[in-house]
Amino acid sequence: MQPFPEVRRPAIDLPEQVTVFEVGARDGLQAEKQTVPTEVKVELVTRLIEAGLTHVEATSFVSPKWVPQLADAAEVMAAIPRPEGVRLPVLVPNQRGLERALAAGARDIAVFVSATESFAKANLNNTVEGALALAEPVVTEARAAGVRVRGYVSMCWGDPWEGPVPAEQVAGVTGRLLEFGCDRVSLGDTIGVATAGGVRDLLATHADAGIGVDRLALHFHDTYGQALANVYAGLECQVSEFDSSAGGLGGCPYARSATGNLATEDLLWLLHGLGIETGVDLQSLVGTSTWLAGRLGRPSPSRVVNALAGAQQ
Amino acid sequence: MQPFPEVRRPAIDLPEQVTVFEVGARDGLQAEKQTVPTEVKVELVTRLIEAGLTHVEATSFVSPKWVPQLADAAEVMAAIPRPEGVRLPVLVPNQRGLERALAAGARDIAVFVSATESFAKANLNNTVEGALALAEPVVTEARAAGVRVRGYVSMCWGDPWEGPVPAEQVAGVTGRLLEFGCDRVSLGDTIGVATAGGVRDLLATHADAGIGVDRLALHFHDTYGQALANVYAGLECQVSEFDSSAGGLGGCPYARSATGNLATEDLLWLLHGLGIETGVDLQSLVGTSTWLAGRLGRPSPSRVVNALAGAQQ
Repeated sequence: MQPFPEVRRPAIDLPEQVTVFEVGARDGLQAEKQTVPTEVKVELVTRLIEAGLTHVEATSFVSPKWVPQLADAAEVMAAIPRPEGVRLPVLVPNQRGLERALAAGARDIAVFVSATESFAKANLNNTVEGALALAEPVVTEARAAGVRVRGYVSMCWGDPWEGPVPAEQVAGVTGRLLEFGCDRVSLGDTIGVATAGGVRDLLATHADAGIGVDRLALHFHDTYGQALANVYAGLECQVSEFDSSAGGLGGCPYARSATGNLATEDLLWLLHGLGIETGVDLQSLVGTSTWLAGRLGRPSPSRVVNALAGAQQ
Repeated sequence: MQPFPEVRRPAIDLPEQVTVFEVGARDGLQAEKQTVPTEVKVELVTRLIEAGLTHVEATSFVSPKWVPQLADAAEVMAAIPRPEGVRLPVLVPNQRGLERALAAGARDIAVFVSATESFAKANLNNTVEGALALAEPVVTEARAAGVRVRGYVSMCWGDPWEGPVPAEQVAGVTGRLLEFGCDRVSLGDTIGVATAGGVRDLLATHADAGIGVDRLALHFHDTYGQALANVYAGLECQVSEFDSSAGGLGGCPYARSATGNLATEDLLWLLHGLGIETGVDLQSLVGTSTWLAGRLGRPSPSRVVNALAGAQQ
């Protein structure tokens, strides 16, 4: 039998290569109630790199008071491999976090803001403007140190308090982050409510504001099962970078669903089936997610992990 | 807060209306290990109709020896409501099944064949040609009795024994069913391996064979998480009928995943978010799936059911 997914490239224009931006070790593990041992984190990052991922968010230098799960950020950074050509960004909330990240040898950082006032208040205890003002010197100083900066914008399609979010509001925030010096901005559907029409719409609004898809990435949650349909809509708009989490690690605290981040394995099934190159070994990643599920004591929510790991048994 | 999903109709041509062809009471319940009591089946069909579904597959007249779970087909047919404008198709494997279906008052039936020899052998103990030869008189006699006939083709993209399935082979089988007199043919991704490129490809092959999308429906399984991305690809090709199962009832016995049929609720989230009319009340359906999950003693695999039922608690 020939292997699946079978490659059938549709007769429409899609990117030939896509960057899978792996966020499991940071965005996933920070959502865990349990604190995962440092050696498990290091093994996770190592295995993700070995699977062929070239963009692996490694940890977070947010204060251990806020995210105790990742208090060992410096130890993780000291222990993980740093092969040529692999970027290992770390999340940084402010100048103090940047100092810690630089001291730990980070060469890629990420800053984060919210598209909505309600989530800026809830998550950052700040306003949207206040969060941007906090991010600006971080970006400037990182750039001065030769460090590349990614921006994250949360709640880009919907917000649990405000409902649907105007596209112009999001594009305004994205534009500010790019002006500061961010390399690329990841648009997050933090509560997973977006559908494919909203994806096209938000990308068109960014294009109208002079922001091309080469400056953007998309970060979907699968809370309502829409993540891959949204990715496909993004691919049709030529987006070539997508965030995902090995095994679907991590969740959204604002929905009672077991599902949160799009699983990298599910993303790879789509991309590989479309004939889009990622350089990532799907089977290797399924093995890693199965191993990690054992360490965390609960199954992966990834459809592909369940189907392929089940088939291997 | 405004309700989700927010409607954002993309600036591309999509159908304005879509028929949701609900298969949970048949395709879903026939896959259950336990036999569901007749009164639960009747209540399920009744609630599905009340939620606004106009195409509700009610039961199967396949021999009780093969599908003991639906041995009460005649009792179900006698007890369910039959409102004007609602179609209640039943599955029929052969002339004996047709007789039983007609005696039970069915006005819509469905016949099924496989696109591959391996599955024809495994599922029907027949060849592809043999299964078509069995279906032809059923379709002819049903049509003579003024009954509408739907065709199902299994394994349209991939087969667990044969791997990827040639598109021309599938279109050949579809063409035969339409020649016999089927009204519409549903193309099934029985093991859930298709990706969006394969969907476009198979529809294009049908178009090349003179079979338009108005004669087709799409039936996706979510085994690898691809069902909604595949639906979206189908919508872009103007397909306007999709099969799904309330709460994701049913599964594929050929993958060890918990997931099988696309959940109707997840499909509705996509369609409604795209501004496509279905006439179905999502919240009502979530209530039905939550009720049924309680009766079956296990949670629904639907992302939307979990998210919305959780939010209601």
